[in-house]
Amino acid sequence: MKNRIITISREFGSGGRSIGKLLAQKLSINCYDNQIIDRIAQESGFSKEYVNTQSETAPQSSILANPFFYNYTYSTNQDYMWNIQRNIVLELAEKESCIIVGRCADYILKDIADCLTVFIHADMQKRSERIVKLYGENSVSPIKRLKDKDKSRSAYYKLYTDMEWGNIRNYQIALNSGILGISKCVDIISQAY
Amino acid sequence: MKNRIITISREFGSGGRSIGKLLAQKLSINCYDNQIIDRIAQESGFSKEYVNTQSETAPQSSILANPFFYNYTYSTNQDYMWNIQRNIVLELAEKESCIIVGRCADYILKDIADCLTVFIHADMQKRSERIVKLYGENSVSPIKRLKDKDKSRSAYYKLYTDMEWGNIRNYQIALNSGILGISKCVDIISQAY
Repeated sequence: MKNRIITISREFGSGGRSIGKLLAQKLSINCYDNQIIDRIAQESGFSKEYVNTQSETAPQSSILANPFFYNYTYSTNQDYMWNIQRNIVLELAEKESCIIVGRCADYILKDIADCLTVFIHADMQKRSERIVKLYGENSVSPIKRLKDKDKSRSAYYKLYTDMEWGNIRNYQIALNSGILGISKCVDIISQAY
Repeated sequence: MKNRIITISREFGSGGRSIGKLLAQKLSINCYDNQIIDRIAQESGFSKEYVNTQSETAPQSSILANPFFYNYTYSTNQDYMWNIQRNIVLELAEKESCIIVGRCADYILKDIADCLTVFIHADMQKRSERIVKLYGENSVSPIKRLKDKDKSRSAYYKLYTDMEWGNIRNYQIALNSGILGISKCVDIISQAY
């Protein structure tokens, strides 16, 4: 593949998505994030809401728990969505130089595309403030929401890549957005690109 | 403390020391690395060779294994050297804005100084080539030398900081020097500083 891809893995609430968008503007390339969810929904037949909550989540139980969506080709709905997601990521990387947020794109494109692999993290306090500001409060505490989401992403990544999510050695650049700030992260990644 | 410090933690053979030196030139500040070993030797009475091999190594056995160096204030020689090292790092950070390579400086200065904490890593192949080029071959394979040194630094860091060496969340910036290259790492860190 001739294109240059930036993959951004991110802790929930670390601003990885915002960094992707700003970076895209700065580099004049596209950033793919929710568009991938839309396409998975379109191609799978599942609703956007279902894809959004389930497509970066490891299956919590056996296929017997999901009898309505069970099909004969894939063991779980997640496997089914994973395959669609994988093809979308490969297609994007083949088509253009771009930024892909999440979706295990770092793993899917490993040894195939010319990737700058990035991980964005921040401490709990900073991330709590950010998700409350962006998504508001609800009955679950921000810390619990962060921990649940991180755990779920980590399990999902492990299941489909057999690699450890957030292991320093899997990324070319890892940045603490809580201390460095979103704008500085954008500058650093664009310089490295 | 009013000074701004860059701490560089690094895997053996990743070029962290070279990055520190080049960064020092670029930012016109001092980089402290082997000078700290010299000072520990001077202040402890141990030889430079002994300090060099032992001061970033966790004690391998009980104090009974080191009866000649045993003293009544510290349990082990490493504890003794740790205390001297800690004071030197604090003194440097108090004195001037500078770069400190290794020595658990990130931990020693945590919550005390304004630090940019950096971790440099690279894959085994790149690090092997680097140590053979810099230090030559010997009877132990490069991979074994790397693994032993990483293990030793990791155990030392854990012992004195109770934190995990190379955990992505302990550093503001982590860079793969094997892929990005030494010069790009210098540019990125200087920009973040």
